[in-house]
Amino acid sequence: MGSPGTGVGWGLLDYKTEKYVMTRNWRVGALQRLLQLGVVVYVVGWALLTKKGYQEQDLDPQVSVITKLKGVSVTQIEELGNRLWDVADFVKPPQGENVFFLVTNFLATPGQVQGRCPEHPSIPLANCWADQDCPEGETGTHSHGIKTGQCVVFNGTHRTCEIRGWCPVESGAVPVKPLLLQAENFTLFIKNTVTFSKFNFSRSNALDTQDPTYFKLCHYDPHSSPACPVFRIGDLVAAAGGVFEDLALLGGAVGVHVRWDCDLDSRGADCRPQYSFQLQERSYNFRTATHWWESSGVEARSLLKLYGIRFDILVTGRITFLCDLLLLYVDGEAHFYWRTKYEEVKAPKRTARPEQTELAPAPPRPAVQGP
Amino acid sequence: MGSPGTGVGWGLLDYKTEKYVMTRNWRVGALQRLLQLGVVVYVVGWALLTKKGYQEQDLDPQVSVITKLKGVSVTQIEELGNRLWDVADFVKPPQGENVFFLVTNFLATPGQVQGRCPEHPSIPLANCWADQDCPEGETGTHSHGIKTGQCVVFNGTHRTCEIRGWCPVESGAVPVKPLLLQAENFTLFIKNTVTFSKFNFSRSNALDTQDPTYFKLCHYDPHSSPACPVFRIGDLVAAAGGVFEDLALLGGAVGVHVRWDCDLDSRGADCRPQYSFQLQERSYNFRTATHWWESSGVEARSLLKLYGIRFDILVTGRITFLCDLLLLYVDGEAHFYWRTKYEEVKAPKRTARPEQTELAPAPPRPAVQGP
Amino acid sequence: MGSPGTGVGWGLLDYKTEKYVMTRNWRVGALQRLLQLGVVVYVVGWALLTKKGYQEQDLDPQVSVITKLKGVSVTQIEELGNRLWDVADFVKPPQGENVFFLVTNFLATPGQVQGRCPEHPSIPLANCWADQDCPEGETGTHSHGIKTGQCVVFNGTHRTCEIRGWCPVESGAVPVKPLLLQAENFTLFIKNTVTFSKFNFSRSNALDTQDPTYFKLCHYDPHSSPACPVFRIGDLVAAAGGVFEDLALLGGAVGVHVRWDCDLDSRGADCRPQYSFQLQERSYNFRTATHWWESSGVEARSLLKLYGIRFDILVTGRITFLCDLLLLYVDGEAHFYWRTKYEEVKAPKRTARPEQTELAPAPPRPAVQGP
Repeated sequence: MGSPGTGVGWGLLDYKTEKYVMTRNWRVGALQRLLQLGVVVYVVGWALLTKKGYQEQDLDPQVSVITKLKGVSVTQIEELGNRLWDVADFVKPPQGENVFFLVTNFLATPGQVQGRCPEHPSIPLANCWADQDCPEGETGTHSHGIKTGQCVVFNGTHRTCEIRGWCPVESGAVPVKPLLLQAENFTLFIKNTVTFSKFNFSRSNALDTQDPTYFKLCHYDPHSSPACPVFRIGDLVAAAGGVFEDLALLGGAVGVHVRWDCDLDSRGADCRPQYSFQLQERSYNFRTATHWWESSGVEARSLLKLYGIRFDILVTGRITFLCDLLLLYVDGEAHFYWRTKYEEVKAPKRTARPEQTELAPAPPRPAVQGP
Repeated sequence: MGSPGTGVGWGLLDYKTEKYVMTRNWRVGALQRLLQLGVVVYVVGWALLTKKGYQEQDLDPQVSVITKLKGVSVTQIEELGNRLWDVADFVKPPQGENVFFLVTNFLATPGQVQGRCPEHPSIPLANCWADQDCPEGETGTHSHGIKTGQCVVFNGTHRTCEIRGWCPVESGAVPVKPLLLQAENFTLFIKNTVTFSKFNFSRSNALDTQDPTYFKLCHYDPHSSPACPVFRIGDLVAAAGGVFEDLALLGGAVGVHVRWDCDLDSRGADCRPQYSFQLQERSYNFRTATHWWESSGVEARSLLKLYGIRFDILVTGRITFLCDLLLLYVDGEAHFYWRTKYEEVKAPKRTARPEQTELAPAPPRPAVQGP
Repeated sequence: MGSPGTGVGWGLLDYKTEKYVMTRNWRVGALQRLLQLGVVVYVVGWALLTKKGYQEQDLDPQVSVITKLKGVSVTQIEELGNRLWDVADFVKPPQGENVFFLVTNFLATPGQVQGRCPEHPSIPLANCWADQDCPEGETGTHSHGIKTGQCVVFNGTHRTCEIRGWCPVESGAVPVKPLLLQAENFTLFIKNTVTFSKFNFSRSNALDTQDPTYFKLCHYDPHSSPACPVFRIGDLVAAAGGVFEDLALLGGAVGVHVRWDCDLDSRGADCRPQYSFQLQERSYNFRTATHWWESSGVEARSLLKLYGIRFDILVTGRITFLCDLLLLYVDGEAHFYWRTKYEEVKAPKRTARPEQTELAPAPPRPAVQGP
């Protein structure tokens, strides 16, 4: 049967559909419906609701971070006397960017001038017995200057090669106690603004207040004062898993991660930053110098080897927003939603076919119904 | 019927296919073809052409940004006299990085030395009536020094606790007019190079010219001179939605976003950066100090509270390129294209089956054709 | 036939399935199995094994970069005499961040004071024949000061407008030989720590050693010493495709890309950073000044136009990890894996149906079996 129809070439507009067998076996039927239900539940329940598949999102906000440190500390050092340090002295660079350095300790070599002096014994190839151990003009990556060819006495104990450079050379002493221990009580104010240009949505982590004293008195607390991003350095280091005394002595690096996860569907009500802290390095120092001209017209500098804590503030953010159906075709995630949609459509389609099956063949082929 | 065939176990190589009903009802047929056509049109037209599904892309370029400010400004201040400022004075840091600060105003406290002086009344807990209001050694986060225990007179008006620190303390005056208002006419040169290593494609936003005077005379214009990234600060702030006078007075932060969206299919012809500007903060200042040794051997510093505009240059880029079919299997987006391909294949498959259907059963089962 | 069944409305639990035609034609059968095999091979072999579809990954690590330059260099200049430079002199900023600048050349203008002097001829509109060519108070973006209205002689050769500003003005000489050529032998130590918070996995690029001399003596080599990230500047520039002499003369910018690609399945054994170097700019300079007060009480500054190499260290990382099946529903890539899974299920389903087909209809419709 049907073979004559197929013997003849069939045209573009012929309609052809599977032939079905139908049963009232309720077990099999229930099973089938159950499977179909499963698909629908997955698609609607999971993909749309749980994964918020109906939302559009913006993952890279424009970020602005301004930091400000507050506090004062006193140091007792022979060279510098009983000296008070404030923010202009211990924050480098002073600009208040997202990466900055808080001086907590230092090794000072004041009054260096260009001249000749013995190299430090800790430098490779610095120690010598005689002049021939010190080839003139030789220099190493770690040396403080150019060898003059002399082998001289280094403060009575060692014999080292004489060099031409900034003299006297740095003592190389390792600090035993941090000099700016009060830095623990300094406070760090982090002002952070994120702008999600895709939704033209902007938000700051700091309370927008006219009260000039608010940020002078408040401290951050996720519950009582979430809009006061003023952190005590000691607490911040502890939250990062570090011991302030250790970091203050030899320096270190602490990462501050500000996470924004905003859901505009809930009226941006829960669009608040999360702060997390992380200890990145357990030692950190660098050298810097301040230069001046002595009355004798000689250039002098005081060399500082600064130990301290480097703060690195990283801001990441994502925002989600209810999207219309159009999203299904314009969003980058379209293929995901489209797949979802496709599933939904498929389920009813299957049940839609049989009607066609029964209707279509009836009129054109009474012969099929025959005897 | 068919039951005998199924009564027997059937082997791995048995072929089994749906049985079809065919009709010449052109309405239903047309509808079916229409649906199929829709799928093909979607896949080819939308996924491939509109979404450029056939392209490969690189989203994270290596970016190099060099900035250079030009201009001079004059200030009249008692302490410093009629003074001219140039780029070496008002740009911090001077390195020309992607984040820098343009000084537009400042509060100077020259000639500070370590000593004893009255605290500023604006500081919390600074005001006092008697010495017992000033516990010796006490200090606050915002104070300028350590309390000495004395309650003294602050320039005739207030009584405040005496402190040991950098004296005299900053006046705390709020600026009323910007001192470097000419900064509005300064120019900012942004040289930006992006390199998409995935395609080994590099591009600069500045004209590659040998003429040394070109960048001295040109200004940016998207139409007439798109390859001259020289921006007047005043225009730039206005484009960001700010009022220069206000920012110059109390400082602020402006974001500059350079967007590269390059399509190598169109011969990179339209691979030009888009510049957008955004006002991030409406106030910005920080303190810095220059230290020196007075002839008396005393260390002195002049403290500067600098107000100004911080520029933050952000570069993002994407590049797209014609890809071969291989992409369908190696690219991260493969699942999307693969889905697409799968659809294309499916459509013809359905029409291919019937031939098999008619051919296959004919020879082996003449019985079916009976009675 | 079947029409009576369909004449009656049929209920929700009716089961309906395609009717099949079966053939023992082994060619067609083999072909069909082959196709099915292809799908399975693609899904399992390609999607799962090759693309590691079963893995979870973390693409944005928290990154900490600390840099340290070592070396000394000597310069012979009239103004400054035979002078030795060390790291405190030629690295700006000194903090050891991921972007820093190594001075290799400079143009010094020492002893500038505020005053009146002729403008430099290279400045637009600086040259003049008479005073009326120099409108008083006029200034340009590139001028060194404010015109006084006089037209004066510039060191015997030109006539230029007199200006009020920092005098004398910079000579504008172009350097002919780099002054710190020894910088080629300086070494750059890059300490980089990456933390993938998603897996709580942290890794450093530097050997964790107690030996204080290790990093003083080692140099980076991918094979012999991959855990010693100490790079010679000359080699680094060469690897970036630059000629050190050229960069040292007029400056430049070099990008250092540290790539982490860690596969935790292989016990993190191959979790090592890859270093790549790239020449970003072929010229780079900026101006900075050091200020001081002369004994006469006049503020003076020495202006430096610094040429040198800017290093920009970029760190990117990805980490992959074996995931359980749950991933199929929680991971962001779920739609991809789900698609994969869906294919797998589909293949057997098709072969599972026929049994149902044969079983289901038998009991309810004996009439169908009849001759």
